[in-house]
Formats: sequence, structure tokens, C-alpha cells
Amino acid sequence: MKTNPGRFFEDYRLGETIRHAVPRTVSGGERALYHALYPARHALYSSDAFAQGCGLPASPLEDLAAFHVVFGKTVPDISLNAVANLGYAEGRWLLPVYPGDTLRSESTVIGLKENSNGKSGVVYVRTRGLNQRDDVVMDYVRWVMVRKNKLDAPAPEAVVPALKPALGAEDLVIPAGLDFTGYDFALAGEPHRWADYAVGEKIDHVDGVTIEDAEHMIATRLWQNTAKVHFDATFREDGKRLIYGGHVISMARALSFNGLANAQMIVALNGGAHANPCFAGDTVKCWSEVLDRAETPAPGVGALRLRLVAVKQGAKPFALKGEDGKYLPDVLLDLDYWALIPK
Amino acid sequence: MKTNPGRFFEDYRLGETIRHAVPRTVSGGERALYHALYPARHALYSSDAFAQGCGLPASPLEDLAAFHVVFGKTVPDISLNAVANLGYAEGRWLLPVYPGDTLRSESTVIGLKENSNGKSGVVYVRTRGLNQRDDVVMDYVRWVMVRKNKLDAPAPEAVVPALKPALGAEDLVIPAGLDFTGYDFALAGEPHRWADYAVGEKIDHVDGVTIEDAEHMIATRLWQNTAKVHFDATFREDGKRLIYGGHVISMARALSFNGLANAQMIVALNGGAHANPCFAGDTVKCWSEVLDRAETPAPGVGALRLRLVAVKQGAKPFALKGEDGKYLPDVLLDLDYWALIPK
Amino acid sequence: MKTNPGRFFEDYRLGETIRHAVPRTVSGGERALYHALYPARHALYSSDAFAQGCGLPASPLEDLAAFHVVFGKTVPDISLNAVANLGYAEGRWLLPVYPGDTLRSESTVIGLKENSNGKSGVVYVRTRGLNQRDDVVMDYVRWVMVRKNKLDAPAPEAVVPALKPALGAEDLVIPAGLDFTGYDFALAGEPHRWADYAVGEKIDHVDGVTIEDAEHMIATRLWQNTAKVHFDATFREDGKRLIYGGHVISMARALSFNGLANAQMIVALNGGAHANPCFAGDTVKCWSEVLDRAETPAPGVGALRLRLVAVKQGAKPFALKGEDGKYLPDVLLDLDYWALIPK
Repeated sequence: MKTNPGRFFEDYRLGETIRHAVPRTVSGGERALYHALYPARHALYSSDAFAQGCGLPASPLEDLAAFHVVFGKTVPDISLNAVANLGYAEGRWLLPVYPGDTLRSESTVIGLKENSNGKSGVVYVRTRGLNQRDDVVMDYVRWVMVRKNKLDAPAPEAVVPALKPALGAEDLVIPAGLDFTGYDFALAGEPHRWADYAVGEKIDHVDGVTIEDAEHMIATRLWQNTAKVHFDATFREDGKRLIYGGHVISMARALSFNGLANAQMIVALNGGAHANPCFAGDTVKCWSEVLDRAETPAPGVGALRLRLVAVKQGAKPFALKGEDGKYLPDVLLDLDYWALIPK
Repeated sequence: MKTNPGRFFEDYRLGETIRHAVPRTVSGGERALYHALYPARHALYSSDAFAQGCGLPASPLEDLAAFHVVFGKTVPDISLNAVANLGYAEGRWLLPVYPGDTLRSESTVIGLKENSNGKSGVVYVRTRGLNQRDDVVMDYVRWVMVRKNKLDAPAPEAVVPALKPALGAEDLVIPAGLDFTGYDFALAGEPHRWADYAVGEKIDHVDGVTIEDAEHMIATRLWQNTAKVHFDATFREDGKRLIYGGHVISMARALSFNGLANAQMIVALNGGAHANPCFAGDTVKCWSEVLDRAETPAPGVGALRLRLVAVKQGAKPFALKGEDGKYLPDVLLDLDYWALIPK
Repeated sequence: MKTNPGRFFEDYRLGETIRHAVPRTVSGGERALYHALYPARHALYSSDAFAQGCGLPASPLEDLAAFHVVFGKTVPDISLNAVANLGYAEGRWLLPVYPGDTLRSESTVIGLKENSNGKSGVVYVRTRGLNQRDDVVMDYVRWVMVRKNKLDAPAPEAVVPALKPALGAEDLVIPAGLDFTGYDFALAGEPHRWADYAVGEKIDHVDGVTIEDAEHMIATRLWQNTAKVHFDATFREDGKRLIYGGHVISMARALSFNGLANAQMIVALNGGAHANPCFAGDTVKCWSEVLDRAETPAPGVGALRLRLVAVKQGAKPFALKGEDGKYLPDVLLDLDYWALIPK
């Protein structure tokens, strides 16, 4: 058998590290495509001159683009036989990625727990993205439910890693040289600074984008994420292509510019849930809630912990969960992240 | 309120200059996307070697791509509450834009006239695109009808700028070094030179492209033009996404290659009307009319003033307006521009 | 008449060389778009670091992207009035193409044979792609059936070139410096090496992609192939846009990664048939058959001759032709090529 059958639950060993295939060199092409696929307008990722004014050598690749590249490489080894994508935690962006950098990924199995039905189990991995100098550019924990192939394979000792519900300000890694003391608010697009956001404040980002199959496939392929369900209309019984959850993340983050234009850099991913599937024809909108605020040691740089909620057409303003504690059916994404913003 | 409500008619002051947000560094990525989105084949914008043979340091970004970038930045400040895009005038391309350049825009209010209904008014702006050295790479005048928010706001003194109906040959700025004396007509794709075009001549450009929602959204986002009406299918009552007028301009210009392959560089925009809206599923074709011819001081370089008319399926050849003087319903665009062509 | 009417059968002369128009400089933009349009994952074309580990200076443009650029330029001169694309032979990739290279094409007429009906004829051309140093980067023979315009034009002397049914190992040109002795199979994605493939072995590549009009148009325009039938929904009576055959080639080649991840470089095209037309909505899958194996003089580098068959939804596994010897209706492509793979 020459094709990749993917790994099943019984194929993972606690502590093993999987080197994922197909490293990728990024260029201005990936940058331009990111701007073509999402209404991304954060100035630091749009203009070399603006980024240099913030102390960086040039405009980096969007943080979420770097995430998608790193994540995409893990799919053939981690989620080909996954039944569900259960969660993210402790995600950190450690180094900006620039055109010319080559990214690869590796994942260490940090937890395993077979389900009581004996047919599947939960695999926890800590994934690292590395550049051509073997510097770690980001890492995050992800856990997925994976089918067993051999149902009689013995259950491994259950190990569930202790994960932080959210990273704290002390966990955030600020890019070297970042300095917002000369920040140009007019060029960035909004006057609101760190002190203008209050914990508990909610922002309706107003704009919406109706999703096309061609667009989410172009985006998902760009990250070399080739899970069948995103591309093959004959795969699901309903003939629909399930949209890669990361496409919704990037769409919502880009739409959040309107109200959070100065929340420039994403530095941590505390958690995230793909609450409901998204399909072509859905119109994605989003809202944010300020969850926390923190100082950072970098000049002029503050941090906001934000909840970013993507919804589809017909959603009620700021509605997240029903009385049963479950996500409402028109909620697509509930993401918890830290961003850097000028003080 | 954190999101941008846009400006209303009473928010503009004669003489004020608005610095538009989100500067953008362009690369080979934007170039490749332009060629992927439009059937663009003008050799000077396709090949560094060809451009160097014409005296330029490299192949510039398509003139219309530069226009779209500059224009896109003005949308949040100028046309978010616009009821209608009324016209363009005195547009000039002053410097070629190359990969690596960073563009930003600013607009000066040069005219204001409240409508007699007291509910809206016309705003005239002169917009400049600037590069990272603060050189002006293009400027143009645009006027739009904008809603009033406070209907009791006093009407400003009416000022309507005097605008040239068309720029003259003396107004055209020829890129430094441009020299068509060694022009390679075979590589450019057609033998027709300046002297082969007669004033009054009309050319049916034959080819057509059927427009997809995914394509115009990708294009429009690439220029960071985020007007809702182009992206959100829930915005209009008919569920259609209105196609950015600039998408039709670029599509028509690219299709005009077949018959005007040597009309390489656009140097002036005399005027333009988006005669009727364009929607996904429309098939865009176009025709041109030679309006004027002029010499230029650059070696081997002549200029043609051209009318470029985009139409949709079913249009009669070369038909523009009805007996009532109004554009026929299948006319999408009527553009008046100057292009440089070898003599 | 300013527009290009294309050439008719009587316009070709044996031995003449046609310089095709519109040279093209490629960049990281074309590379990124190729990865966005096809699920391309061969590591040598994805990562500079991986390519350098194989002895190349950087990651080249995908071989098929170079082919599409070279091919696209020939369309206005060779196939604008073509009734049928009859075949390919003796295709060779002679030099890798890197970002920054400028490609142009020229074709020599090497055969002419009027059909007995006197209304059309077959034109054989050998096409060369050249870079900015006038090095030939690839060449191939293609033959097409072209309509006559003047039915009374005399038939030329029939000349049918002798073409090899397949290139032999001795015809293959290995890129200078290529060395697979330090090949990283983990990063490449599969452990299978040259010796693991047996002549006659067939591989079902499992994955599928459903095709969208927006995607094949973006791809086809990227190669500046502007044949009406791919873009204009009003051109065919059924309102469908015929998908450029090269789009199916690239889609199938990319899908063949799953099972042939190490068949890194395409070095020869022995032949190919576009067995049936492909339209938006079709789901493309593919399978391969190992036709031959050969040694090469380069360190660690073997060659596989492969049949790549693209099919659409509903095709039976490995079924190619019916009892009548004709391709089955759900077969889209039958391609015969040589690829380099580590030993």
C-alpha cells in the first residue's frame, strides 16, 4: 500500500515526536494571497514601512497564516482519521515569520486516553513550527478524537496533560524590537488604544463575507491542508464541502479589524472551539469581547485577551450559548487569544 | 463606538486632507494575482526583460493595480456612506510602482455641494497615492454623493471645482527612461503601432469572460476595498453582491489586449462612468474607440486617447446610449483614458 | 482588422519558426498560486531548504507550471482555430525555472498534413520555452487539427514527423547538481523509493477535488492562456466553460502525491490524451501505473516512467478503455511521463 492510511488511535505512543512532511518556503505570494482571501487590513502585516516604524525589520507573514502552514502539515499524521477536533491550548507565537523563511512542523504526543466505547480515543499533541534555522516560531497544544483501526488493540495508560485554561501575561513572547511608542494611529486606521478597551466590552464588527467553495479551497490548499472533506463534494452524503475551521478563524480575525484595527499582533491562542460547521453560502460575521488586559515590558505595547466569535447570517447580537450551555446553531467559532496593541 | 461609521456629508470640510489608513507593500504576489484574475497580457507588465528593453528598470505593477490599491484605501473615509459614485477626472499616473514599494493614499476635499433635497451632497476629492519615499505615484479627482446624517446640519458654501473634460497631451507624464525605439512587436503580440490607429476607429475586442463571485471578491479584497456591498450577500435585498466597478475596469482593459496589445501604459484617466451594475454570471466583453492621438517627447512613444466600453452578454456592437441619451442597460463601463504606444 | 484572427491551416509553412508573444517573469507569486490552486505537496517544489538538500540552488517553479507558461503563449498562434488537440510527444524539461526567470516560447512547424475532407489539417510543432538567457528550459512536440479558412488553398506536401512513442532513459536530462543521496524521506512525506515500485504496479491515489469555474479560470489565466472556450459561458451552446486540459494535468499530478510523494521532478512527457472534457462540478480523482524504471547517472537518482490517469466521479478503479478500445466516458486524462525519484 503506497498511499497514506493515516494513523489510528493505537498507532500513537506517549512521548513520541512525529516530524511532519512537506516543509514550505513562504514568499510575498503567500502574503498577497492572504490579503486576497481575507479582508485583512492590520497595517503591520500590510506595510513594510509601518512594520519598520514598529521596530520590526519588515512586515511579517500574518500570524494566522503562519499558524495555518504549521497546522496544515500536521493533518496527514494527526487528523486524517480524526472524528472530531476537540480543542486548542497554550498556543504561542514565538518568532515572526518573514518572506523567505521555510517552515516545517513536528508534534510530540503528550496525552492519550481511550474512550470508554473502545472504538476511539483522544490524542493530545504539542506541535511546534520551526524555521530553516530550527528556531521554534510557534507552538500549541491540540487534541483530537481519533478512531481505532484494530478494536482489540490494548488501551494505553490514560494520560491527560495539565493545560492552562489561558496563558497569562507572563507567558506572552513579544517580538524582539517591537516598539509602539511611535505608532501611527491614522495609518493604522483607528484611534483606539489599549486604555480605551474595558474588560467585558463587546464589539460588533459589523462587516460580513459570504463564503464561496472556490475561496475556501484555494485558502486551505495554500496551507497544504489536504483533508478530503474540504475538497471532495462526493465525500459527505449531503454533497457539501466542510470548510476548514482555520478559514473561519482567519475570516473572523480579518473582519475584526473594524473595531480592533490596533490589535495588531496575535501572540497567544488560549483556546478555541469550532462550534458549528460552516459551508459555502454562509455569510460570516463576528463580534469580540475583551476578556483581560495586561501590560508588557515592550515600549508602548499592551496586551488584550480577546474572545472572537464568528457567527453566520441570522445570528442574534452577542448571543453565544443557549440555556443548555451549548453553542447556538449559528455560532461558528469561539476563539480566545492575546493580541498586542499600542498603549 | 469602536467601529468606523464612515463620514457623512456634513463631516467634510473644504480644503481638509484626509490621510487614509492601511499602507500596503506590493510584491510579485500582487503581480501574479493580477495576472490570475484578469486576462492581462500587456508585455511590459508581464516581463522584466521586455520592460528593460523599453528603458524601465523592471516590469512595474499594472497601472490599474496601482490605482486599485490607492483607491481601496479611500473607501472607509470617502465612500462608506456614498449613495453613488459620480465620476472621475484628471487622473494621472506619475511614477511606475515596483514590487517592494509601499503605497498609501491621502485625499483633499476640493469641492462640496449639498443637494437641494437637504439629505445628501456631492463631495469632490483629489486623491494622491504616495510611495515609501513620499513621491506621488498617481493622483485623480473623484466625486461621490454622500448621505447626511444630521439633516439639520447647515449646508456648506457650494464649491464645485473646475475640472478638465480631458487631460491634454501636455498633461501626460511619461515615465523616466521610457524608450520604444527598440520595441519588439513580435514579443508584444501585435504589429499595430501609433500611426495605425485613426481617430474615430472602433475595435471590437472579441473575447469575453463570465464573472464569478469568488473572483471579484478575491480581487476586491486584494486592494483592501472592503465595502460591504461587494462581499455580503445578505446586504442587498436581491441577495446579489455588487461587483466593484474597478473589477470591470481591469477586466475590460485586459480584454482590450486583443486589438490594443501595444497600448502598453495607461498614463491618464480622463473620466469614467459605471453605467450599470455588474453581477456574477454576467459575461463581460468590450470595445474601444480611438478618441485622440498625440505625440510625446519620449523616443518612439506616442499617445492614444481611448474610450473603453465594457458591455455584458447580448449587447449590440458599439452601441453606447439610447435615444434618451442614457446608457443602454447592457453597458457596464464607459472609460476615457490615455495610453502610451510605440510609434 | 486589429484583433488576432488566429492562424488557419493554410497559414503554416513547414520549417517556419513562430516567436510567440508576451514573455513572462515568474516570482514567488506564481509559486504560491500554484500551491493554492492545486494540492501540490512535492517537497522539492515547496521548500528551498529541501531543494538545497537535493543539490539545487533553491526550490524551482513546479515543472508543470513552467509547462503551462510555455504552452499558454502558443495558444494565440497555434490553437486559436484548432478543432482538436491531438497529442504530445518528446517533451523534456531541460532546466529548472526559478523565481525571477523570464520565459518566452517559440514553435517550429515540423509537420503538416491536410485532411482528406479538404477542410482542415494537422499541424505538428516543436515548441521551445526559453529563459532570459535564451537557454531552452523545455521543449515538446504537439499536434493539433486546425481549420482551413480558404478551402481552395492548395494542400501542402504531407510531412508527418517521426516521433518516439516514448523517450528512453538516455533522453532524460537531469538537472545539474541533483543528488538524492541525502534525501530526507520523512520530510518528503513517504518512505517509498525507486526500488519499491514495480513495473505494472497500479496506485489509486484516493483523494479527490471538485472543480469550480472560478478556480480553473484563475489557473488558466495565470498561464496567460486566453482561449475563449475556458472563460466565456456564452461561447458553447450548453453554457459550460470547458476546462483547460492542463488544469486537469496539474490537478492529477498534485493528487498523485499520495502514493508518489517521492516522484519529485518531472523530466519528460512521453505523450498525453485529454480523453474527455472536464467541467465545473466534476470531482477529479486519479490513479497511476508504473510503466518502466531506469537508472540515471545522477547520485541516488532513479527514474520512473508513469501513466497518470485522471478520472471523474463514478469511475471504476483502474478502468481506462472500453472493449471498443476507446477511453471510457469518465476518463479525463491519460498522461505518460518520466519522473525522478530517490533510489
